Amino acid sequence: MRTGVWLVGARGSVATTSIVGALALRAGLSGPTGCVTELPEVRGPALPAFADLVFGGHDVVATPLAKRAEALATAGVLPARLVAALPEELAEVERELRPAPITGSQADRAAAIGRDLTEFRERHGLARVVVVNVAATEPAPGPHPAHADPDALRAALSGPDEVLPPSSLYAYAAVTAGCPYVDFTPSTGLRLPALTALADTHRVPYAGHDGKTGETLLKSVLAPMFAMRHLAVRSWSGLNLLGGGDGATLADPAANAAKVRSKQRVLGETLGYLPQGDTRIEYVEALGDFKTAWDLVTFAGFLGTGMRLEFTWHGCDSALAAPLVLDLARLTAAAHAAGHTGPLADLAFFFKDPLDSTTGSLADQWTRLCAFARQLHGGGADAERG
Amino acid sequence: MRTGVWLVGARGSVATTSIVGALALRAGLSGPTGCVTELPEVRGPALPAFADLVFGGHDVVATPLAKRAEALATAGVLPARLVAALPEELAEVERELRPAPITGSQADRAAAIGRDLTEFRERHGLARVVVVNVAATEPAPGPHPAHADPDALRAALSGPDEVLPPSSLYAYAAVTAGCPYVDFTPSTGLRLPALTALADTHRVPYAGHDGKTGETLLKSVLAPMFAMRHLAVRSWSGLNLLGGGDGATLADPAANAAKVRSKQRVLGETLGYLPQGDTRIEYVEALGDFKTAWDLVTFAGFLGTGMRLEFTWHGCDSALAAPLVLDLARLTAAAHAAGHTGPLADLAFFFKDPLDSTTGSLADQWTRLCAFARQLHGGGADAERG
Amino acid sequence: MRTGVWLVGARGSVATTSIVGALALRAGLSGPTGCVTELPEVRGPALPAFADLVFGGHDVVATPLAKRAEALATAGVLPARLVAALPEELAEVERELRPAPITGSQADRAAAIGRDLTEFRERHGLARVVVVNVAATEPAPGPHPAHADPDALRAALSGPDEVLPPSSLYAYAAVTAGCPYVDFTPSTGLRLPALTALADTHRVPYAGHDGKTGETLLKSVLAPMFAMRHLAVRSWSGLNLLGGGDGATLADPAANAAKVRSKQRVLGETLGYLPQGDTRIEYVEALGDFKTAWDLVTFAGFLGTGMRLEFTWHGCDSALAAPLVLDLARLTAAAHAAGHTGPLADLAFFFKDPLDSTTGSLADQWTRLCAFARQLHGGGADAERG
Amino acid sequence: MRTGVWLVGARGSVATTSIVGALALRAGLSGPTGCVTELPEVRGPALPAFADLVFGGHDVVATPLAKRAEALATAGVLPARLVAALPEELAEVERELRPAPITGSQADRAAAIGRDLTEFRERHGLARVVVVNVAATEPAPGPHPAHADPDALRAALSGPDEVLPPSSLYAYAAVTAGCPYVDFTPSTGLRLPALTALADTHRVPYAGHDGKTGETLLKSVLAPMFAMRHLAVRSWSGLNLLGGGDGATLADPAANAAKVRSKQRVLGETLGYLPQGDTRIEYVEALGDFKTAWDLVTFAGFLGTGMRLEFTWHGCDSALAAPLVLDLARLTAAAHAAGHTGPLADLAFFFKDPLDSTTGSLADQWTRLCAFARQLHGGGADAERG
Ligand SMILES: NC(=O)c1ccc[n+]([C@@H]2O[C@H](COP(=O)([O-])OP(=O)(O)OC[C@H]3O[C@@H](n4cnc5c(N)ncnc54)[C@H](O)[C@@H]3O)[C@@H](O)[C@H]2O)c1
Ligand SMILES: NC(=O)c1ccc[n+]([C@@H]2O[C@H](COP(=O)([O-])OP(=O)(O)OC[C@H]3O[C@@H](n4cnc5c(N)ncnc54)[C@H](O)[C@@H]3O)[C@@H](O)[C@H]2O)c1
Ligand SMILES: NC(=O)c1ccc[n+]([C@@H]2O[C@H](COP(=O)([O-])OP(=O)(O)OC[C@H]3O[C@@H](n4cnc5c(N)ncnc54)[C@H](O)[C@@H]3O)[C@@H](O)[C@H]2O)c1
Ligand SMILES: NC(=O)c1ccc[n+]([C@@H]2O[C@H](COP(=O)([O-])OP(=O)(O)OC[C@H]3O[C@@H](n4cnc5c(N)ncnc54)[C@H](O)[C@@H]3O)[C@@H](O)[C@H]2O)c1
Ligand code: NA
Ligand code: NA
Repeated sequence: MRTGVWLVGARGSVATTSIVGALALRAGLSGPTGCVTELPEVRGPALPAFADLVFGGHDVVATPLAKRAEALATAGVLPARLVAALPEELAEVERELRPAPITGSQADRAAAIGRDLTEFRERHGLARVVVVNVAATEPAPGPHPAHADPDALRAALSGPDEVLPPSSLYAYAAVTAGCPYVDFTPSTGLRLPALTALADTHRVPYAGHDGKTGETLLKSVLAPMFAMRHLAVRSWSGLNLLGGGDGATLADPAANAAKVRSKQRVLGETLGYLPQGDTRIEYVEALGDFKTAWDLVTFAGFLGTGMRLEFTWHGCDSALAAPLVLDLARLTAAAHAAGHTGPLADLAFFFKDPLDSTTGSLADQWTRLCAFARQLHGGGADAERG
Repeated sequence: MRTGVWLVGARGSVATTSIVGALALRAGLSGPTGCVTELPEVRGPALPAFADLVFGGHDVVATPLAKRAEALATAGVLPARLVAALPEELAEVERELRPAPITGSQADRAAAIGRDLTEFRERHGLARVVVVNVAATEPAPGPHPAHADPDALRAALSGPDEVLPPSSLYAYAAVTAGCPYVDFTPSTGLRLPALTALADTHRVPYAGHDGKTGETLLKSVLAPMFAMRHLAVRSWSGLNLLGGGDGATLADPAANAAKVRSKQRVLGETLGYLPQGDTRIEYVEALGDFKTAWDLVTFAGFLGTGMRLEFTWHGCDSALAAPLVLDLARLTAAAHAAGHTGPLADLAFFFKDPLDSTTGSLADQWTRLCAFARQLHGGGADAERG
Repeated sequence: MRTGVWLVGARGSVATTSIVGALALRAGLSGPTGCVTELPEVRGPALPAFADLVFGGHDVVATPLAKRAEALATAGVLPARLVAALPEELAEVERELRPAPITGSQADRAAAIGRDLTEFRERHGLARVVVVNVAATEPAPGPHPAHADPDALRAALSGPDEVLPPSSLYAYAAVTAGCPYVDFTPSTGLRLPALTALADTHRVPYAGHDGKTGETLLKSVLAPMFAMRHLAVRSWSGLNLLGGGDGATLADPAANAAKVRSKQRVLGETLGYLPQGDTRIEYVEALGDFKTAWDLVTFAGFLGTGMRLEFTWHGCDSALAAPLVLDLARLTAAAHAAGHTGPLADLAFFFKDPLDSTTGSLADQWTRLCAFARQLHGGGADAERG
Repeated sequence: MRTGVWLVGARGSVATTSIVGALALRAGLSGPTGCVTELPEVRGPALPAFADLVFGGHDVVATPLAKRAEALATAGVLPARLVAALPEELAEVERELRPAPITGSQADRAAAIGRDLTEFRERHGLARVVVVNVAATEPAPGPHPAHADPDALRAALSGPDEVLPPSSLYAYAAVTAGCPYVDFTPSTGLRLPALTALADTHRVPYAGHDGKTGETLLKSVLAPMFAMRHLAVRSWSGLNLLGGGDGATLADPAANAAKVRSKQRVLGETLGYLPQGDTRIEYVEALGDFKTAWDLVTFAGFLGTGMRLEFTWHGCDSALAAPLVLDLARLTAAAHAAGHTGPLADLAFFFKDPLDSTTGSLADQWTRLCAFARQLHGGGADAERG
């Protein structure tokens, strides 16, 4: 079951790391550390093998993939030996990358994207193509009446307005072409009524939003800990210092706001109330592709006694994100194959700001993910539980 | 259903905080923060109310409870206003405290303990008395042939040897008197074949070991996080600095070793392997009743990229432990009332080094605890799940 | 040599802690921890004794001093026993506090302030009165032509405009009344050409700005360490979380900006360049009177190897500031007695944003302070050095 | 003025980094970050230029220098491009390395070392050879009567006993050959009465002990900060986790004890008292050549208010140590040239456990170092100060 993985933002850090990693895994040069779909509880016959994944994608820049990979190696994100060992494999993927369409109406551009997807699928005889958005985070768009309805949207796209932000235009093109869509970023993507309606019409599943790789991952286990122990969290303050391409984008206040919002949600959901304090993102170019997040949690115990937890997370965002991109592509492909449509709420485990999900607890999300995987692999939740 | 809570080490920090807290809750002077049995998922009709708990206990020192409580207030562990508001209630408990028997053979002392328990039960018309060991941590005892068998034990106790360490002598007296037994410390307690056999004979349930209140609590959510994300933990090193009475005891290398061992278990159980690094406990008198734990975790992500997490926990051990002591007394009493005997593995949630438990994950332990509570309250795991 | 200490913002946390502390020292109830003027290198006959200090001040609020002191005791800033032991002494100071004048032109208000100062001096037969601004931080004022010249200023003050921010109006009144002036805050205070000219005319010394008590104190020893070791600091990012009255004020963006600017200066001065990164102040009410500052420093060593230092400072701002307020009052009084006028650059040791100072290194500032103290005490820098 | 730098432990991490760095500086491939002797306050004509340094040394292992350098590059200690750019230069140094003599009596081995030094000096026409001990830390040796006196020592060395630990045998050989000696390690080295007497006889200067590169460096600025502010440090606890060759050696309890002792001294010297708490060193192989040190300082401010500072230092020990090795070689050579003999107490700036020094404050040590440098360069302390 050969499966296409089409990356929007294909020359970015996350995309490049995902591609190099998948090629390295396929070549037996590296192990599956960080890949959730290789854990015993999740892996199984329904998932396409790493060797069955074929990569392509769009980007607005033209930096050769191999050059980007070398830069990541110099920065300590990837082992240099892997990049050196995979020149032909990288060149092969390079040939599947396309410039992001930039001319014509949004309808024209959506059509061009759709053509790229269809040709990719046909060229390689793929069972399906999963589109994954790993492009730079966009500012939240203004409201537009055409966002509410598929027909109004179709009409408006042919006009002169920028009706949809780029992430949503890709989503539109993807679902229209029958491709499942994963939004790894906090951008709007499919989160407009017109688009989810379209996805339903085309019977494709989708997943999102915003890969959970650092501070929020920690919150999703620490906040439940406080809740399970009936400890009262008084304040939770965080500072995220990051330097890579994503950091530069997030220095833009509008993009920052979108990201920060998605980082806060987990506290309300797992604690049942919102403690004082904020989360901030700051760009510090000198930090390169590594991110440092510091959080201070103050809480009250029995009889009101004040206590504190503080943590520092020093993570490589791309190294954390890339295996999840592969996991999501595999799981979404399997869901599509199994006839799932609509929001894949069972994939909340992977996201900061999950679709249609009611729990922010990583452990609960994990339970749901495992059940979903069992079901995909034929065991089924019912079978196991019954 | 009036229930006795008999505290071994009744004048210590944890015991005093438990007593003051229960009295304050009963008087409506404080809320149930930190009490797991007051969470919606756990509370219910099977548990004795706080107002139904009657306290007594043994200690080797004679410091008046009220004086100990004032010292804890000065140290910031308790609000001074609570101690000031409860003089009569504290005096009432004071009258139920007994000196730890110190004369005669171990059989004599066990008998004296048993009499104290029985008289306590009868004096107050209690449905049952749960014995909770919150005495200072003991060094691990040497092996003794009488540890293997109830009859041999009974015989040996009348001889001149110190056959059992104090925690086990209390456990012996408790189960012989038909009292459920909870070991909140890392001491031996009931963990000898002769004693668990006796507990079975007397049809009492028991729980333990070693309340999980700080670094290990964090490990029980963080280690599963690394496992669920398939991240490879390379090293996990910790330093616990603590100053209270417990800290002074643990400065003794033998006691320290027992405690450290119980702190490491969770990593092996949740990760499936033991990373490099050690956990240390150090006594720093100036820290008083607050403990600072610092942990450094180094781990590898996708393609081997090295990353780090570090945390500092600044907790008040007694404020964290006391509500769990009340939780355990309530749950163990309800288990006894419901006819449970033997090890209560469903209470693993509360312990660093749980009896008969196979998971170190706090979330999994929580699931088990909630199911157990539902069952106690009459819903039953089957009812709920069926 | 009885000396007046007139506190602007006399009912605030810093002022109250300074007053309680001085009274406690005088009564022999507490030691001089935190008082730089009690170190062997600084103390001496030229300084007024703690017993010779008489307190008074202005505030815009009317909360009784004793009530404020009790609140600080509850918050853990002061020992409750001190407040309880000093009721009469506090009542005595209470009688010397005056409401901040709020009616009439700025000239009228300045005159009222001046009268309060003069009457205070005469009522107690004081050798002099040092005015110390510990009022809430103000936003930076807009420019005004009258700021440049004493005569223009005098004229403008009688008009309808708010020509001067409050801190500068106090400074104006102080120097006009012949009182030395210390600005412990980042507010404008004396930092206007018209005011420094007036100070010179009235031959009074002055000192400022902004007491150095936390993150900047650490920077003033850590940045020189990097410089002395020729290590290249690449980024220095900081987050200050604070909850007290000062925190609430600083939540106002304009006040925050003033404070942040004064916190950055030390890096440029000691390193010779400005590394990447920012310092932020955030108000988190739950933190109360304690402040947590976290800083991350990344730096390059030999051959460019990247390294990191991170620190967390958990300080009680008022407890850190109060002894410095007393130190500054004593030193400035002694300087006035010795005939010093103009900016006391030798007191840079105490300030984040020192007047006329060229070094940000705490050690260099210390050397200068010690020399100044020796000179005041009659030894003289010349004597020592010659 | 061509100057020899003879490294004992020449194939270790510190030595290799020093050599590669000096070669890179000479070739203009890298800048002098981390080199104190390149700061304006210290540099000057009296110091041999980097281009004038000629390297040689002893080691007990035979790993080629180039291979060691490559391993350090892989570990992130050195840029790989430097190692790749300097193959011939490294080969040239390789030819000057000698196996540590291991046969015969200690007198024979000392003679062999002496010959190696003399031949090195003559072969390259060197003005002098500075011997720097950067070999693995030794356990402290037992006492021996011959340690007290040069003649007794000479006699004993010809006997069968291991009279001297290796570091002291090198020191003996060095001074006997007229070579200045620097001990960068905590080992005994020259710290025996017989050896200092011999150094005086041969009129050579010497410096030591134990390069100050991490936790102690921070202590040497932070402890003075607390002292200058009259804050009372209650406890200072530290944990050093390190993985490199040095870490493995220090896992040996005896070596660990020597190192820990030298790390504590600074607190007593700068605070005037020893706070509670210990410093520990632990070997965690996974940390490789980077070290993480965590320190917790608790202190009291005005009126006894408790506060805390905690820091984490994540440093590359070899990258921190190597430039200091070069600094010490240059300064000691210049001191020898200027006729200095005996302990160079003015170099305390560089050491954890300095010879004959009375101050632990880095700032004071810096002042002394700058004065010494000025004097060497001909300005002279007197000239400057007079
Ligand atoms: N790395 C993580 O841990 C993580 C976690 C959650 C979310 N994300 C999100 O993943 C995204 C990618 O992160 P990154 O670090 O790779 O960023 P990056 O800046 O390295 O890469 C983004 C890529 O998107 C491309 N791009 C921008 N606009 C585009 C458009 N309209 N069409 C096509 N391509 C476009 C850019 O040219 C660039 O190559 C970001 O939105 C980030 O917020 C990352
Ligand atoms: N506080 C926590 O977070 C926590 C967590 C897990 C376990 N524990 C365990 O709880 C226990 C109590 O801790 P603490 O802080 O209250 O210590 P503590 O030293 O304040 O109190 C212990 C009490 O036990 C008494 N005692 C000692 N030997 C006794 C004996 N033979 N018979 C009866 N009484 C005896 C002592 O006199 C003292 O009053 C310790 O074993 C500790 O390891 C505490
Ligand atoms: N605490 C520290 O470590 C520290 C360090 C440096 C500077 N400071 C500065 O010291 C000042 C006081 O801090 P605090 O924590 O005591 O704050 P606070 O809010 O507790 O007290 C400020 C007081 O000033 C009064 N006030 C406000 N406007 C006034 C006016 N126009 N005239 C007279 N009184 C006025 C307020 O009513 C209040 O009582 C702040 O400006 C702060 O930035 C404090
Ligand atoms: N790196 C730092 O920041 C720092 C700071 C202070 C002190 N030091 C000291 O510097 C020394 C070297 O550290 P390193 O990290 O390079 O260690 P390392 O283990 O990498 O190197 C030590 C070298 O010494 C050699 N050696 C051992 N015994 C010897 C002997 N008898 N004769 C000759 N050579 C011998 C070893 O073979 C090895 O090559 C250690 O003693 C360490 O404590 C290092
Ligand atoms: Na920290
Ligand atoms: Na930290």
